[in-house]
Amino acid sequence: MKLEDILKGIKPLDNTWIQKARERTAQLVMPTRALGRLHDVSERLCGIQKTLSPSVKRKAVLVMAGDHGVASEGVSAYPQEVTGAMVQTFLKGGAGINAISRHVGADVWVVDMGIIPEMNPDRIEGGDRLLVRKTARGTANLAKGPAMTRQEAETSVLTGFQLAAGLFDEGVEILGTGDMGIANTTPSAAIGCVVTGIPPEEMVGRGTGVDDEGLRLKQGAVIKGIQINQPDPDDGLDVLAKVGGFEIGGIAGCVLAGAFYGRPVVIDGFISTAGALIAGILSPLATDYIFAGHCSEEPGHKAMLKHLGITPILDLGMRLGEGTGGALAMSIMEGAVCVFKEVLTFEEAGVADKA
Amino acid sequence: MKLEDILKGIKPLDNTWIQKARERTAQLVMPTRALGRLHDVSERLCGIQKTLSPSVKRKAVLVMAGDHGVASEGVSAYPQEVTGAMVQTFLKGGAGINAISRHVGADVWVVDMGIIPEMNPDRIEGGDRLLVRKTARGTANLAKGPAMTRQEAETSVLTGFQLAAGLFDEGVEILGTGDMGIANTTPSAAIGCVVTGIPPEEMVGRGTGVDDEGLRLKQGAVIKGIQINQPDPDDGLDVLAKVGGFEIGGIAGCVLAGAFYGRPVVIDGFISTAGALIAGILSPLATDYIFAGHCSEEPGHKAMLKHLGITPILDLGMRLGEGTGGALAMSIMEGAVCVFKEVLTFEEAGVADKA
Repeated sequence: MKLEDILKGIKPLDNTWIQKARERTAQLVMPTRALGRLHDVSERLCGIQKTLSPSVKRKAVLVMAGDHGVASEGVSAYPQEVTGAMVQTFLKGGAGINAISRHVGADVWVVDMGIIPEMNPDRIEGGDRLLVRKTARGTANLAKGPAMTRQEAETSVLTGFQLAAGLFDEGVEILGTGDMGIANTTPSAAIGCVVTGIPPEEMVGRGTGVDDEGLRLKQGAVIKGIQINQPDPDDGLDVLAKVGGFEIGGIAGCVLAGAFYGRPVVIDGFISTAGALIAGILSPLATDYIFAGHCSEEPGHKAMLKHLGITPILDLGMRLGEGTGGALAMSIMEGAVCVFKEVLTFEEAGVADKA
Repeated sequence: MKLEDILKGIKPLDNTWIQKARERTAQLVMPTRALGRLHDVSERLCGIQKTLSPSVKRKAVLVMAGDHGVASEGVSAYPQEVTGAMVQTFLKGGAGINAISRHVGADVWVVDMGIIPEMNPDRIEGGDRLLVRKTARGTANLAKGPAMTRQEAETSVLTGFQLAAGLFDEGVEILGTGDMGIANTTPSAAIGCVVTGIPPEEMVGRGTGVDDEGLRLKQGAVIKGIQINQPDPDDGLDVLAKVGGFEIGGIAGCVLAGAFYGRPVVIDGFISTAGALIAGILSPLATDYIFAGHCSEEPGHKAMLKHLGITPILDLGMRLGEGTGGALAMSIMEGAVCVFKEVLTFEEAGVADKA
């Protein structure tokens, strides 16, 4: 599908279903909306899935991996090889996202959106979970010029869209977005600055844990990247191409797919939210289909979520990425669905409502 | 067991296991403590269970129900009969706590700690889940005198202790406390004021949703209750007897049992936390064994949790009680355990750690 057709196909969230869902909530045998944001979650799921019987049983997480030229600016505490090594760890089932996904019952798929190493799914442990969709072998250094071409940016978004669409087609009812890519909080912060207008000093954080010198280099890279590239905040592909990353484009594509097919997408932390910001420029309607799994420790994350107008479900000081916060929040969302579908009404329970 | 012996048997939380657990966390293939408070949760579980292989698979919730003489002051939006009706709803499996407990895999037990109606477990739907342990048929009106005798207060605490001990004995690995009792935010607020020193205007909230007049009556009842009864904040049984409730005593007993047997107890919202405050007076060491499931919408809850020195896991604007917030948080805690036990170390994964 062409990006243009995707964007045309995204419709506003259906408020009639949300309204019907609110009417059911009002009848549940508890004080009015006593489960707070659990009700908001279940009702928005009703709106997205256009039903009074929403389901988030079939869960999947797409962990999008990419490498970043800007790593050469010294912006990460880890060497670039760690991107590929972590992809292998995901495939082995040994990372944070694997443990949390098993716990909540989500399938994990790992996507090579553009890492430097070449991996052969047939020759690697757990390779049946690896989807090789390289846009290129790592981005260029955004501090010195555009991270990628506009064409590559579009390709990465369409790739994410198609992967998510494929999962929805197989029956996945809720999709989490994850990321892996050494240095990827740097492009994410750059996107955050461009889109929200917040200055780099407030947006750039320590990511995986850089020291003061690393933080200075990171802020410098973001400032240079924006100055040199002059991304247009009203042009999602321009922002993505100039200061983004392939996995960020893939995540933006997942968000668009959720909105296009009417399936909920749970974004994770700083990097996933940067992807959602790109999607939000391309289609402002798309953000109504997103749930924010958690609020990250990364300082700029709150401002990004505020810009998108979504309230995170969890706030546990997490800052790992991989999709962990989104996957963990799926369990809360499923709890919200259980309440919505299983709790009796005052009438069914034979309990007197408020005088 | 005598209360005296219980209190003597509660030992400080074992920091050597927490320290060992922190060492394992530091080796997990992720940036240092990148999953934030999930690590704190899993490490404290290691300390409580004295193991590096904690488990919270076998979950149970004790929903403690009691009636309250202070209901006659007009402090609740619901008639007193709703306490018994909701007990029946719990037994049918149709309330919020049932839906959430099924979702997280927790068994629900309902305890008649002192409701007004007499219920025969053999003649009621779902009665095999009802434990009748009446201290008395409802408390007296705390705004006019003590809610119960000191002897009744001790009985309610010991009853909660014995019930929790029985569950632990059967292999329950984590226990959630729940409550049901029309008007029970009033005694809870009174306990909160006495223990934390915060004035009634800041502690008393709308509970199930009283209007402005109800709120005024509720604040009045709390003020009168404290003035007339003069509870001694250093004497847990005195506070419980004068301004408490039978289900609150039962919850305090659960908290003591967790500490005594070295099992984690997850408290829920405003009422459960009032129970924990009573337990904390009786045994300050006991609070190290508690997890706070969530932060309630009830305004005084934050101050109560701060007094106990525990940070809530969730913050979702919930204010239902029944144990819902604690049960929902168990899923997050179990996720934390999965991360702790299943994520590979840097060495096992063959990933380079920070330079």
